[in-house]
Amino acid sequence: MVSEARLIALDWGSTRLRAFLLGDGGAVLASRQTDQGASTLSGAAAFEQALAGVAGDWRAARPGLAVLACGMVGSQHGWREAPYAPCPADAAALAAHTLRLDHGVHILPGLLHDGAQPDVMRGEETQIVGALALHPALAEGACLVLPGTHAKWARVHDGRVTGFATHMTGELYALLRQHSVLARLMPADGSVAPSPAGFIAGVEAARQDGALGHQLFAVRTLGLFKRLPAEQLPDYLSGLLIGHEIAHELRAHRPARLAIVGEPALCERYALALGRFGLSAPLQLDNTAPAGLWRLAQTLGL
Amino acid sequence: MVSEARLIALDWGSTRLRAFLLGDGGAVLASRQTDQGASTLSGAAAFEQALAGVAGDWRAARPGLAVLACGMVGSQHGWREAPYAPCPADAAALAAHTLRLDHGVHILPGLLHDGAQPDVMRGEETQIVGALALHPALAEGACLVLPGTHAKWARVHDGRVTGFATHMTGELYALLRQHSVLARLMPADGSVAPSPAGFIAGVEAARQDGALGHQLFAVRTLGLFKRLPAEQLPDYLSGLLIGHEIAHELRAHRPARLAIVGEPALCERYALALGRFGLSAPLQLDNTAPAGLWRLAQTLGL
Repeated sequence: MVSEARLIALDWGSTRLRAFLLGDGGAVLASRQTDQGASTLSGAAAFEQALAGVAGDWRAARPGLAVLACGMVGSQHGWREAPYAPCPADAAALAAHTLRLDHGVHILPGLLHDGAQPDVMRGEETQIVGALALHPALAEGACLVLPGTHAKWARVHDGRVTGFATHMTGELYALLRQHSVLARLMPADGSVAPSPAGFIAGVEAARQDGALGHQLFAVRTLGLFKRLPAEQLPDYLSGLLIGHEIAHELRAHRPARLAIVGEPALCERYALALGRFGLSAPLQLDNTAPAGLWRLAQTLGL
Repeated sequence: MVSEARLIALDWGSTRLRAFLLGDGGAVLASRQTDQGASTLSGAAAFEQALAGVAGDWRAARPGLAVLACGMVGSQHGWREAPYAPCPADAAALAAHTLRLDHGVHILPGLLHDGAQPDVMRGEETQIVGALALHPALAEGACLVLPGTHAKWARVHDGRVTGFATHMTGELYALLRQHSVLARLMPADGSVAPSPAGFIAGVEAARQDGALGHQLFAVRTLGLFKRLPAEQLPDYLSGLLIGHEIAHELRAHRPARLAIVGEPALCERYALALGRFGLSAPLQLDNTAPAGLWRLAQTLGL
């Protein structure tokens, strides 16, 4: 297997390091994961050691094999800063902004969309490149949604990311779920089954176009007055936050083609919510980072 | 002094107990404050002790003096639950829902506005009654804004509170300031001077009608790209949150008469923000709870 290896591809985010050994055509020959995310490491030596730990044997078996990394590894507090490439940007633009370190290690830049206020991504640009490589029709024109702690809505046209917006949806959920007055009414995390009914009720509330800060307080009163059972409140909160995100994005632009890229359960949640806004059965893609890293390695001639 | 006392008025919130000895016409003869808020006490005996601690000597000096309390003391987890009075409600309706305990202690109800979703207040209804007592013109028709952890926007018409909305503005600020990714870019709380420029920039961003979850992430990028100095970021965040609250409320209804009731520095902050929305120099009232408690005691015949 290792003799066919062509690239060591690293999806190196804040909290996790995912390593892929890729063969011809970007086939995943092996993959590993550690919790040595960029936010847990400080200084170049720590990053070198983490790389050696996760892929040292792969590199030893085939000296000279290129390493290509995306994500927070290239941030200010990462291994070395790879300055953002500005939108609009395609794979070639990302390649042109890629840092070449010693020993065959390459770090991809993030993307900057300098609209009314600057907005940034690191890692998602590679997932987008991967999604376009896997589904070339998306490259013509599409909206790509990447849910998560900091969810991204990216517009693609003619193979380039023309702009994007970040929503703090996942982080707001975690903050409110753990630390707010709403938390007191909710059962402990993980102690109750998911409630699609609660989630949909939250999405529907968001569709009413209320102020988020006001509707968040209603999560409390709905619990207080037993209009919603306590075990539905976490999913109601999730639906409310995701619904606000979707409502705003669709108000700005209703895409003809939409894909959701990310962890399957979260994609399913977004698909359910999008359905309430009349956008049914969007394309759902899981883990497109390896495909993106492979495509960018080709662009870089690695 | 004590011989003229007519009422012991308690503003008994979640985190604090404020006691006022009121004389003829509601004049404040003495006031005290403890941190024995309702959320720190459990069981009737604990509330009785807290009352004895803060006002035992006042009561001993004039046996039979009535005690009237508003706030979270009347909640489910308070001394005893005083069920909410429904909107529309005036002083008489609040009096009709008042609980009479033993030994001359009375607990006022909160208010319930059962709109699209139920909304509640406890304590603010008394501040509103006080504001109307102090400024009778407000009773004809006005919007009263009570900023805070859970800010209230109340509509008054013909002496009655016809409806209101709560915004979790203060709590969101505290959560984001202390626990979010935004906190990392900000100087420690209390270590920098207030920045009116940062605050106004945040209000102006809110006026652009972006999604709150998106604009919150921009607080990070504005710091990252040094578009705003780190010391302005906390006030920018404050302006953004207060601006979203105001934008939404004024979209629903632009009041002819508006008053802000609360702590002076916070009222000033709201007045500054309201000015950016074209509402200048609103009436600002500090601590109207004693006036409200006095007025309600009259209604109750205490």
